[in-house]
Amino acid sequence: MSNLFSEQDQIYMRQAIALAQKAIYSTKPNPNVGCVIVKNGEVIGQGFHPKAGQPHAEVFALREAGSHANGATAYVTLEPCAHYGRTPPCAEALVKAGVKQVFIANTDPNPLVAGKGISILEAAGIQVQTGLCEYEARVLNEGFLKKMATGLPYVRLKVASSLDGRTAMASGESKWITGQEARQDVQHWRAISGAVITGIETVLADDCQLNVRQLSNVELDAIVQPKRIVLDRQGRLPLTAKILENPQNTWVMAPYRQELADLGVLQFKVQPLQSLLKIIAQKYSIHDVLVETGATLSTSFLTEQLVDEMIHYVAPTLLGQSARAMFQADFSSLSQQQRFTVKDITQLGDDFRFRLIPVQESL
Amino acid sequence: MSNLFSEQDQIYMRQAIALAQKAIYSTKPNPNVGCVIVKNGEVIGQGFHPKAGQPHAEVFALREAGSHANGATAYVTLEPCAHYGRTPPCAEALVKAGVKQVFIANTDPNPLVAGKGISILEAAGIQVQTGLCEYEARVLNEGFLKKMATGLPYVRLKVASSLDGRTAMASGESKWITGQEARQDVQHWRAISGAVITGIETVLADDCQLNVRQLSNVELDAIVQPKRIVLDRQGRLPLTAKILENPQNTWVMAPYRQELADLGVLQFKVQPLQSLLKIIAQKYSIHDVLVETGATLSTSFLTEQLVDEMIHYVAPTLLGQSARAMFQADFSSLSQQQRFTVKDITQLGDDFRFRLIPVQESL
Repeated sequence: MSNLFSEQDQIYMRQAIALAQKAIYSTKPNPNVGCVIVKNGEVIGQGFHPKAGQPHAEVFALREAGSHANGATAYVTLEPCAHYGRTPPCAEALVKAGVKQVFIANTDPNPLVAGKGISILEAAGIQVQTGLCEYEARVLNEGFLKKMATGLPYVRLKVASSLDGRTAMASGESKWITGQEARQDVQHWRAISGAVITGIETVLADDCQLNVRQLSNVELDAIVQPKRIVLDRQGRLPLTAKILENPQNTWVMAPYRQELADLGVLQFKVQPLQSLLKIIAQKYSIHDVLVETGATLSTSFLTEQLVDEMIHYVAPTLLGQSARAMFQADFSSLSQQQRFTVKDITQLGDDFRFRLIPVQESL
Repeated sequence: MSNLFSEQDQIYMRQAIALAQKAIYSTKPNPNVGCVIVKNGEVIGQGFHPKAGQPHAEVFALREAGSHANGATAYVTLEPCAHYGRTPPCAEALVKAGVKQVFIANTDPNPLVAGKGISILEAAGIQVQTGLCEYEARVLNEGFLKKMATGLPYVRLKVASSLDGRTAMASGESKWITGQEARQDVQHWRAISGAVITGIETVLADDCQLNVRQLSNVELDAIVQPKRIVLDRQGRLPLTAKILENPQNTWVMAPYRQELADLGVLQFKVQPLQSLLKIIAQKYSIHDVLVETGATLSTSFLTEQLVDEMIHYVAPTLLGQSARAMFQADFSSLSQQQRFTVKDITQLGDDFRFRLIPVQESL
């Protein structure tokens, strides 16, 4: 479709995408949206949604444009909303301002919006075109769009291994397998996630916190920290675990424990992974999940086909056959293998990051 | 050093390198050499060494230039030879033709040449500059240069694995792990090698031939086929093995067997890998070796620090923990890991090829 759009239109939409990107760590659970308003070849208004509870992108852009918005063209990365939430509907604001044309990258799969925003605009005689830079804009809201369409969050599985697919020595010794740049990169994926899921074994072994500790050029205060969800089917999480230092951000799936409730920890009953994902998405608006855990739980997410993307850090080293395997499925024939398509490969210091999309059809 | 050279000089030397590249599959055991002769900004002669027994690059280029070579500049990828071999020395030919300046990419570490070519040129008043496009030209003769400098061949270890470092299912089932493009790429590495080394287990399991069967845009007749060397410490190679179909190209390291001698198979006594490499380099002018074998022998080459480069094909798939490991060393601590620096990564169809240089210092 994108070849139907002019290069100039693409430039303005990319500008709107870049604006939306400024807030990727702070808008959750809301989507990332950017808006650019153009008149006579000049940008007269720009805006993005900075965080939940604050105005939408279109509102900021229209404010900046003022009365010049009359007769202008708006570029919005996501279909303008049509519902009265914390703010009045953006579609109506665009109509009121007298905008004459609107370009939209992604239509909103949210049932509360679903084409209603476009209807309001068109009913007012505004010319609407959708699909401009659609693919590029999707990246802003992978989780939001998937959740709205399917009820499930977008799940990224992070793994790190040597060239021979090992994560640690048999003894558990594992530091320095990947370098500083790869570990820094993980912070980004945590920060765009509504929740980081791990298993009790990982917590017991590493006493990890799984929070966002450092991001280049971003103030930590501006980040909405992901929830940390510990899967603890036997209720073994020690009350002294570091992950309980911010109990309001820690959730557990475990048999009910009063002492965790007293700390303010949200508890989920023990249930299949897919059910848990559905609940956190639908009831708690967790749209992006990062799974950071050991081989056993990683394997469950993969074999239950719950992974949308595997982020695989590879260190250029061999650890040998007695080192720990990254993946524990016991496949007996090639027909059971889990294949992927490679989305991209990036060098991070000495290491490499593969982004891999599981091929769900069996071969 | 290369910043001392003008861009124009680099362009001519790259042209000489491109000429040399035309014969990379046919010159062995001789080096790949290209030559460009330039006068008044015009290329008046070009040549490359096509195969052993035929004239050197300089001879072809001087023939083409004829009397115009007088006062010209020559660009040669390797120091011109100074010895009377099958052909008269090229250094003297350049002097005789009246060339006034010579640019050389790599000096020749061969003790028969070792600066003597340059001395002949300089004694005749020719201005000589070395090191132009040195790194790029090295790639033409990785094995030749290493052998002349150290007495050992340049050893490439080929491995192919899944993302989790597995080469085959536990049953041995392994086809389709890497795709057509990766398998085609292996043909190139075989074709530039003087010998392909494998182990008896690989021959027994696959009945492989390890010859060059197909190369894009190259006639098979023009390729000097690599020797295939089977390491067979217990003398188990069946006389019906396909690898014995061209016995003059098959060598074995095994206890002496009269029936192999009768077929014309060259036999080496059982000895350490490094000794074998030394003999095939020094006595049989094998400068580039490709090791294509199973995990046990691959591991020996690596742990005995005999590998100059690992060519690792990675298929985007997971085979699971019971599948066969690509590497069999039993390291117990991280200090024993074998680290690499990554030379490059290339996409080949769905697969990826890492070129990795082992870091020999322990960490």
